[in-house]
Amino acid sequence: MNKRIIIDCDPGIDDAMAIIMAASHVSDLRIEAITTVSGNVGVDKNTKNALRICDLIGLHDVPVAMGANRPLVRQQLVASDVHGKSGLDGTALPEEPVKKLADEHAVDVLVEKLMASEGDITLVAIGPLTNIALAIRKEPRIILKIREIALMGGGTYGNRTPAAEFNIYADAEAARMVFESGVAIAMFGLDVTHQALATLDKPDELKGIGNPVATAVSDMIAFYSGAYQGKFAGAALHDPCPVAYLIDPSMFELEHIRVDVETKGEFTYGMTVVDFKGVTDRNPNVQFARKLDQDKFWKLFMETIKSY
Amino acid sequence: MNKRIIIDCDPGIDDAMAIIMAASHVSDLRIEAITTVSGNVGVDKNTKNALRICDLIGLHDVPVAMGANRPLVRQQLVASDVHGKSGLDGTALPEEPVKKLADEHAVDVLVEKLMASEGDITLVAIGPLTNIALAIRKEPRIILKIREIALMGGGTYGNRTPAAEFNIYADAEAARMVFESGVAIAMFGLDVTHQALATLDKPDELKGIGNPVATAVSDMIAFYSGAYQGKFAGAALHDPCPVAYLIDPSMFELEHIRVDVETKGEFTYGMTVVDFKGVTDRNPNVQFARKLDQDKFWKLFMETIKSY
Amino acid sequence: MNKRIIIDCDPGIDDAMAIIMAASHVSDLRIEAITTVSGNVGVDKNTKNALRICDLIGLHDVPVAMGANRPLVRQQLVASDVHGKSGLDGTALPEEPVKKLADEHAVDVLVEKLMASEGDITLVAIGPLTNIALAIRKEPRIILKIREIALMGGGTYGNRTPAAEFNIYADAEAARMVFESGVAIAMFGLDVTHQALATLDKPDELKGIGNPVATAVSDMIAFYSGAYQGKFAGAALHDPCPVAYLIDPSMFELEHIRVDVETKGEFTYGMTVVDFKGVTDRNPNVQFARKLDQDKFWKLFMETIKSY
Amino acid sequence: MNKRIIIDCDPGIDDAMAIIMAASHVSDLRIEAITTVSGNVGVDKNTKNALRICDLIGLHDVPVAMGANRPLVRQQLVASDVHGKSGLDGTALPEEPVKKLADEHAVDVLVEKLMASEGDITLVAIGPLTNIALAIRKEPRIILKIREIALMGGGTYGNRTPAAEFNIYADAEAARMVFESGVAIAMFGLDVTHQALATLDKPDELKGIGNPVATAVSDMIAFYSGAYQGKFAGAALHDPCPVAYLIDPSMFELEHIRVDVETKGEFTYGMTVVDFKGVTDRNPNVQFARKLDQDKFWKLFMETIKSY
Repeated sequence: MNKRIIIDCDPGIDDAMAIIMAASHVSDLRIEAITTVSGNVGVDKNTKNALRICDLIGLHDVPVAMGANRPLVRQQLVASDVHGKSGLDGTALPEEPVKKLADEHAVDVLVEKLMASEGDITLVAIGPLTNIALAIRKEPRIILKIREIALMGGGTYGNRTPAAEFNIYADAEAARMVFESGVAIAMFGLDVTHQALATLDKPDELKGIGNPVATAVSDMIAFYSGAYQGKFAGAALHDPCPVAYLIDPSMFELEHIRVDVETKGEFTYGMTVVDFKGVTDRNPNVQFARKLDQDKFWKLFMETIKSY
Repeated sequence: MNKRIIIDCDPGIDDAMAIIMAASHVSDLRIEAITTVSGNVGVDKNTKNALRICDLIGLHDVPVAMGANRPLVRQQLVASDVHGKSGLDGTALPEEPVKKLADEHAVDVLVEKLMASEGDITLVAIGPLTNIALAIRKEPRIILKIREIALMGGGTYGNRTPAAEFNIYADAEAARMVFESGVAIAMFGLDVTHQALATLDKPDELKGIGNPVATAVSDMIAFYSGAYQGKFAGAALHDPCPVAYLIDPSMFELEHIRVDVETKGEFTYGMTVVDFKGVTDRNPNVQFARKLDQDKFWKLFMETIKSY
Repeated sequence: MNKRIIIDCDPGIDDAMAIIMAASHVSDLRIEAITTVSGNVGVDKNTKNALRICDLIGLHDVPVAMGANRPLVRQQLVASDVHGKSGLDGTALPEEPVKKLADEHAVDVLVEKLMASEGDITLVAIGPLTNIALAIRKEPRIILKIREIALMGGGTYGNRTPAAEFNIYADAEAARMVFESGVAIAMFGLDVTHQALATLDKPDELKGIGNPVATAVSDMIAFYSGAYQGKFAGAALHDPCPVAYLIDPSMFELEHIRVDVETKGEFTYGMTVVDFKGVTDRNPNVQFARKLDQDKFWKLFMETIKSY
Repeated sequence: MNKRIIIDCDPGIDDAMAIIMAASHVSDLRIEAITTVSGNVGVDKNTKNALRICDLIGLHDVPVAMGANRPLVRQQLVASDVHGKSGLDGTALPEEPVKKLADEHAVDVLVEKLMASEGDITLVAIGPLTNIALAIRKEPRIILKIREIALMGGGTYGNRTPAAEFNIYADAEAARMVFESGVAIAMFGLDVTHQALATLDKPDELKGIGNPVATAVSDMIAFYSGAYQGKFAGAALHDPCPVAYLIDPSMFELEHIRVDVETKGEFTYGMTVVDFKGVTDRNPNVQFARKLDQDKFWKLFMETIKSY
């Protein structure tokens, strides 16, 4: 089956890889649009990076639309420590993209594509959830149109704070709006994305493939791993996880449980509170990914890169 | 001077009077649009009421656009105890409006009118601030285009809770986004709107005027006063205050001070925290109305009604 | 009637005056003990100041017991900007007291005196409520023994933050424990203590009295007024208010209402949330002082000083 | 080495086992006192249960002192769903203890024993931390006297809420005071205590031992397991963990990290926020137990019971 998707992202190195993976699996996924949001770096840079990636992989027909330039309520936060100043450091990609930005706003693209659909569009949400929250509040009828939101965010522990992961922490109010919206959510948090670790041998293996996409991806992973050094055994490929799930759900174990987003805590703002034991009586709202078949994941990742 | 305004409202009895007052002062104010938001009752009813009021006063050329159907983050709250089940109880207005709703969404109307303006549009915000917050986040360039937001909300004490007034309490996160946006704000909170008290003799005085608008207004105030009975010496005409200010600023004393919106408190969610003594070092962001010249206000109100 | 009182304080210039006032009215009040708490300055200095004041006025028989050296949960806060580095700047009092500190801890003194009483002891609480909260939790039976707590703290606006007064802000969790304890409370917050303003002519008038207590009080008020200059028309004599109430309740108008202490808010931590309109259904727990007969107050104050 | 300990507890079935374990290892531990606190059930019942356990195991010389009857700030919470109405359901122990309660208050016992010590007393804290928080605030000098607090509480997930474990949730403010006090803490949270699982065969194995303590423990575990049925593979012996650690630290793997207690969150009140990755710059304050050698633990537990 060919699933229609919109990728809402803040590229960002691992966002780039998610786009690259999604675009190469044309028999499984059809990218209807790419929308961008403030996150890893400012929305201007994130958007330029999305266009640069489209140039790299020849994604000429997919519109790229720019969205929110800051979170809803909280002050802005960026992660240039991880992704470099440009948000896509480490590559030799041309700085200025050839591809042009769409005229429309990301929120309007989301609303229009969804309202025109038959409920068959999945959102791949791999940045802060600001655009999606805005779209849901501006046009609540899309709640019944979204097939599923496959998102990267949260987990039972954090990376920005001990309790909170970057994407949720960067706009916890937006995340809360999405998690409480009633939309079906498949959640790929740090528990599972830290199983998608690009170990230190990966850049060389990728470089060996020889095509320009492989070279760019190799360079990006090499740069990205620097930020993880010492703390992890490699670089976590967070954002490709929800894409991999849409291509081959069998590589993930998921559990249907309640997840709430903390927006008030002093030490826990932006935490996703996961009720594994069912101690609350709030209804399950999330398919929570706990386990990744790493072999399958890397096989898919390598095939993706070789396909270019 | 003829000021261009957009009225963002949730009619609501006192909203109706604000529209009636604004529409009658064509030499001072030009209503560019009326946008509606969930608040006193649901947005469907609020919108229908806006159309009914336009029918009553012959406001055929002004577009009415529907906006958000619930607050951004918090659960929804309505005030049908005060405004009746329809939101406009007490009148003999036809239930179904003749005037048609605009096709566009309130947020799009706000963004388009403001972006097309030369910075000369004032927003009269007399409901929860959901639409304006959505517009600001979707299109942040409107922040530099808004001349001023004259809003009814907040105060140094509350009516929904001991600390919080209805409009702010109904969407405190949206209010916070607006108060922290950098836009010029003139704030008409309970401290001053409780000085615009329709005493118990007003309905009869109004009825004596004899025109259909006077009759409708008289009926509405009579109904509305019921909700206040025992607690107040009459019904507070909250929403006409910012309109009166735009027609004749001289009837208000204002103070330029810092106001913050509490979104975390247990007893204080939705409170506007007013720094009269300057004990914080946050910059003043609000012209806070403290005192109303009640004679001037009632003179203006009566003239308004007689003009129909 | 001769009321037995324990003064729990953090002297502090206005605390000193409260002690001086209480001690001079032997026909109305009998001071059973003075207990000290961290507040205006650290508890070591506050305690030394309590002893110095006892020396000044010859209060040899009343035990002074030292209590908590910091608030329960929050980080410590002091107010040496108002009371000077010593907590009692401006006077020529000997730096080292002659009177000796009691061996017992303030909390034990509170518990023992109360448990040994017949329910006839009133607490005059004019510092942060840490000691009293500790005593109530350690020995909950004292809740039924306390006749009343006459306290200085809180109000409908703040002095440390726009929403919070110093004594409550300095230990909001302790305040909450006391306000929710069920004990009868007479509350003298900023609304009424700012009516007990020592205008700029008072120091000279006091100095004219000629006795050593008058001289010391005159010096203290002169120093204290400095901190208020520009913001107020004089120095507020906060702490003497609850003492004046115990001597002559007729000089205050009080209202029996619900007051809650906010411990979670971002802008409102330490605020006393006063429900004047009865919009909550929580039971009244406080006699809230709204109005002071200033003539009576100053007459009492001057008589007090002359009596030495 | 013979360590001196004070056990602060709320028996409670697993508290009982912690006392039984501590009392039998006279060559390792000397129990100086048992203090009780409100928790699993009210403090009256908890105290009676402590006395009943002392009767069972002949602990005649150790004083049992009663402490706080409710948490500091939050409303009271009990866990009679797990421990039965008496707090010690399932046993045939005589209902009324023979042993008498000490006259002194738990907080005074803690302060006096610690102040009289040479800094060689360890607190075994297996209930809510109310007593210890009160003692620390009343007499801050004990902070330098406490050798270590070995406590059962918290973890990276909860049992009362998805985020919070019972002992911390039951008095999060007290827990925060202890965790921020500077005292050395060894923390045994759910992560490790759920490794001390009494599987369903344990009650029979224990009954086979034949002595009266074994019979009582067998009955208690059988009852206790009922509450866990369906959710767990057995009953977790939470409270014996810190005692086992003091007898043989080698059976635990610990990590020195920062742990903060959330007191403000909506979904996270009472959570212990554990900073495994060192993403904050707050100093490590806890030895956090992550792994238990289950064989060693059960060997110790069985030896304990046989020794009676």
